[in-house]
Amino acid sequence: MPPFADRLADAVRRKGPLCVGIDPRWEMLPKAIREACPSPARAVGVFSRKVIELVKPHAGVVKPQSAFFEWFGPDGMSEMRDVLRFAKDQGLVTILDAKRGDIASTATAYAEAAFGPTWDADSLTINPYLGRDAVEPFLTAAKAADRGVFVLVRTSNPGAGLFQNLVCGGKPVYRHVAAAVASWNAPTIGVCGLGDVGAVVGATHPTELRELREAIPNVWFLVPGYGAQGGTAEDVKAGYRSDGLGAVVNSSRGVTFPFHPDDPDWEGKIVAAAAKAAAELRP
Amino acid sequence: MPPFADRLADAVRRKGPLCVGIDPRWEMLPKAIREACPSPARAVGVFSRKVIELVKPHAGVVKPQSAFFEWFGPDGMSEMRDVLRFAKDQGLVTILDAKRGDIASTATAYAEAAFGPTWDADSLTINPYLGRDAVEPFLTAAKAADRGVFVLVRTSNPGAGLFQNLVCGGKPVYRHVAAAVASWNAPTIGVCGLGDVGAVVGATHPTELRELREAIPNVWFLVPGYGAQGGTAEDVKAGYRSDGLGAVVNSSRGVTFPFHPDDPDWEGKIVAAAAKAAAELRP
Repeated sequence: MPPFADRLADAVRRKGPLCVGIDPRWEMLPKAIREACPSPARAVGVFSRKVIELVKPHAGVVKPQSAFFEWFGPDGMSEMRDVLRFAKDQGLVTILDAKRGDIASTATAYAEAAFGPTWDADSLTINPYLGRDAVEPFLTAAKAADRGVFVLVRTSNPGAGLFQNLVCGGKPVYRHVAAAVASWNAPTIGVCGLGDVGAVVGATHPTELRELREAIPNVWFLVPGYGAQGGTAEDVKAGYRSDGLGAVVNSSRGVTFPFHPDDPDWEGKIVAAAAKAAAELRP
Repeated sequence: MPPFADRLADAVRRKGPLCVGIDPRWEMLPKAIREACPSPARAVGVFSRKVIELVKPHAGVVKPQSAFFEWFGPDGMSEMRDVLRFAKDQGLVTILDAKRGDIASTATAYAEAAFGPTWDADSLTINPYLGRDAVEPFLTAAKAADRGVFVLVRTSNPGAGLFQNLVCGGKPVYRHVAAAVASWNAPTIGVCGLGDVGAVVGATHPTELRELREAIPNVWFLVPGYGAQGGTAEDVKAGYRSDGLGAVVNSSRGVTFPFHPDDPDWEGKIVAAAAKAAAELRP
């Protein structure tokens, strides 16, 4: 299997930078699916797999959000596993958005779950607050299995600056995190010129996105905040490199819930939303 | 139900500050349990519930670590739910150590899972890196259900200082986080004089533990790092208030795995380790 960074580059070259976030919420599901399924967790799984089928022509990457599966307990986690497997079988690159962060053997357990047979995701989002030895077990497990991580650097939410923007030694905390990410990423650069240790950088801060693109040119960015959260297609292009690689741009609600639950044409609405987002985001 | 802070105070007054961490790993389980159980996940659940029964006379608080259950996938998560339920039925206060951190509706989904019927934990550990609006959904859900949170402030691992100790405006990042925790905690102070928004502060940094105890006197501390990680009983006492409340001190491996898997007296070893830790930690 090629390194994660190169698999991601291949997906972006073939289908563009759109990543579809799978954040399924029961009350937003099409009524037709809610009525046909024997349990809410199953409905969430059926809907998620259908979304993957529908968006596949327009997106090479999908990002299931673990919280919305965990909400349903063990049954939801079973569906999450099936959704990740299904996406992989469809040839898509998967990002498990679980924002895990812990130390030593605990971090190893999360990493083994993410990259081993439990979830078998291509990559995982992780939280850097616990420091070096909290990140290393994830890097080790990713390297052993040709997988990747995306480290939270500058997030897209309005209150993100509370700690991320504290200025230390002349630069904000998130720039210190970005520098650490670049150093962890450096030994993993693939044929595409980017590495397996990526960064989460929100679309809602285009100036910072541009600064970071210049500061850490070999790091893949996962860019949330496009669409429903307010970031425009022009904003996110600050995250692209001149070769058109460098960023995958996530849209969750905008692509997966552009319909009312009663709408009989919900599938058509998803296809149209995915096609529109893919066209807008083309480098 | 009394507020979380007062339930925790009651547990600490009755049994002292020992919190037993449930970090079950298959290869460390007693051979007798591994051989008797139909699946590894079930063995982990059976062992965890047995640990709770054994330590109950010496500890009022238990802290299951979600990573070690997630490792087994959906079956492990079923066991985690049963372990949390069992601990509650035994009258113990539970801390679900999942270090969750996300924003908006995603954070709400994690919080509803933690405090609702999915896991039904008394409290949850959370990661502050994403900032204010990443913490607020957990506070809202905790308040609505009389539950608590423990926010990561200064962790016990050797590499924790990489970002936590960056100095901003004359004080390290973790002191900024501590100040935010104190402000979130202030509206939740219970009869015991402490509130529902706690802080994780490692035993391996006794000077910082003492400073933080003075700086944020109304905040409950969850203190990891005692025992196997190197913090002594004297070190952790820097986290106690003069009334003997203020900290719960976690021991995971030291109390739950003080035996070789072949040892026929593993139960006796756990009881002895719990009794010893409880005696050492008494204020």
